[in-house]
Amino acid sequence: MLLSRFMVNDTVRYGIVEEDMIYPIQGDLFGELVRTGEKLKLSEVILLSPCQPSKVVCVGLNYADHAEELNLNIPKEPLLFLKPPSAVIGPGDFIIYPNACQQLDYEGELAVVIREKAKNISVQEVHKVILGYTCGNDITARDLQRLDGQWTRAKSFDTFCPLGPWINNELDPTKINIKLWVNDELKQNSNTSRMIFPVDFLVSYISRIMTLYPGDVILTGTPFGVGSLKSGDRITVEIEGLGRLPNQVKTEGF
Amino acid sequence: MLLSRFMVNDTVRYGIVEEDMIYPIQGDLFGELVRTGEKLKLSEVILLSPCQPSKVVCVGLNYADHAEELNLNIPKEPLLFLKPPSAVIGPGDFIIYPNACQQLDYEGELAVVIREKAKNISVQEVHKVILGYTCGNDITARDLQRLDGQWTRAKSFDTFCPLGPWINNELDPTKINIKLWVNDELKQNSNTSRMIFPVDFLVSYISRIMTLYPGDVILTGTPFGVGSLKSGDRITVEIEGLGRLPNQVKTEGF
Repeated sequence: MLLSRFMVNDTVRYGIVEEDMIYPIQGDLFGELVRTGEKLKLSEVILLSPCQPSKVVCVGLNYADHAEELNLNIPKEPLLFLKPPSAVIGPGDFIIYPNACQQLDYEGELAVVIREKAKNISVQEVHKVILGYTCGNDITARDLQRLDGQWTRAKSFDTFCPLGPWINNELDPTKINIKLWVNDELKQNSNTSRMIFPVDFLVSYISRIMTLYPGDVILTGTPFGVGSLKSGDRITVEIEGLGRLPNQVKTEGF
Repeated sequence: MLLSRFMVNDTVRYGIVEEDMIYPIQGDLFGELVRTGEKLKLSEVILLSPCQPSKVVCVGLNYADHAEELNLNIPKEPLLFLKPPSAVIGPGDFIIYPNACQQLDYEGELAVVIREKAKNISVQEVHKVILGYTCGNDITARDLQRLDGQWTRAKSFDTFCPLGPWINNELDPTKINIKLWVNDELKQNSNTSRMIFPVDFLVSYISRIMTLYPGDVILTGTPFGVGSLKSGDRITVEIEGLGRLPNQVKTEGF
């Protein structure tokens, strides 16, 4: 199923997407997913980021070809960093190009959404704590990343974590295509089978460090083909089975 | 006033601490602070972390003598990293020594607590968005920090962010003593006047990157004198006007 969080009549709701319709559910996405009996047109709601994470845990350099393009070594263990929840935006929201940044890069990524509180989960048990998957974009101020050494500032500006359009809770994430377009040009085109550390390993690894909570997100790294954005650019992440996450760049203050 | 978050009769409440009493208030710490008329003994409640941040923004190397002891350069701009909310614990809670870590260090720090949503705040306006100050301890797996290069994993284990015992909302943070003891030995003994980037500058700087929310915490860096901990050690951060934040180290799984 495709699980969405959306706004209609100024109210935030949750629902199941089927073709061009949304079927609202009772409560949120972490319960029984019981339909209310209502039926809305997808075109008449505003899709929001499908979850509101208490933390976004990101994995750096998880595709060998991307590590190579940045001239960085392939890590022996997953290399983690965090984005703050304040960076999360939904499909269609603007990515704000900060005045402090001279080089704004996109990074299309598969995002894992956690379903239940999880600590010290074995690789074999990981599937029990995952709600599903969505598209993510790890927007990065590349010049500030290089300047600081630590990646946090470069990855943490407001709007630097687009997520959406919805969560697929039946997807096998091990061998799916991941693509990113800037305007109409294909810039990233890879497959999750090329991850150095696969999803199950990553979730288990992270759960041994920090307790994961419902709605928490793990961004699993970006493949080869990162590049820069300018104001006005339209970026679309598309992952097989997950649909498209479109966002546009806008200069800060405009 | 000293503002606390505490547990009594299995309920989380907020109150004003005066000497050895707590005066519960209506609602939380971000409203009008109206007393309910009740009066409780401090010894009969469990103090919790005084806030529940949506993010903990930390500043690295903000005292020159600490940068020197780590053989790191003094940064030209504040060097930021994040701790996840899942790392926060309160006074008296155990710090868990992870099995994955071989060198666990303490770092006593002044913590700023945000009162209201804040973005692009000028240095002059910062006082309007700060609720107050509390003690913080930036627990760090020093060996993993060196290994990873990125500091996130080393700083993000559960229990690695003790905060408390309460928030002082009338403190001038510019020139106060900050001390840390391990067992009964004084290990850190400095003054916030030695910060490279003072509190007002830090909050303004961070607010230009990410929107701050009520309860968000900024850890302002640790002074000279960091060192390591072993299971059983009692660590106490004491900051002038803020009281004492005591925690004890326990091995994971015991």
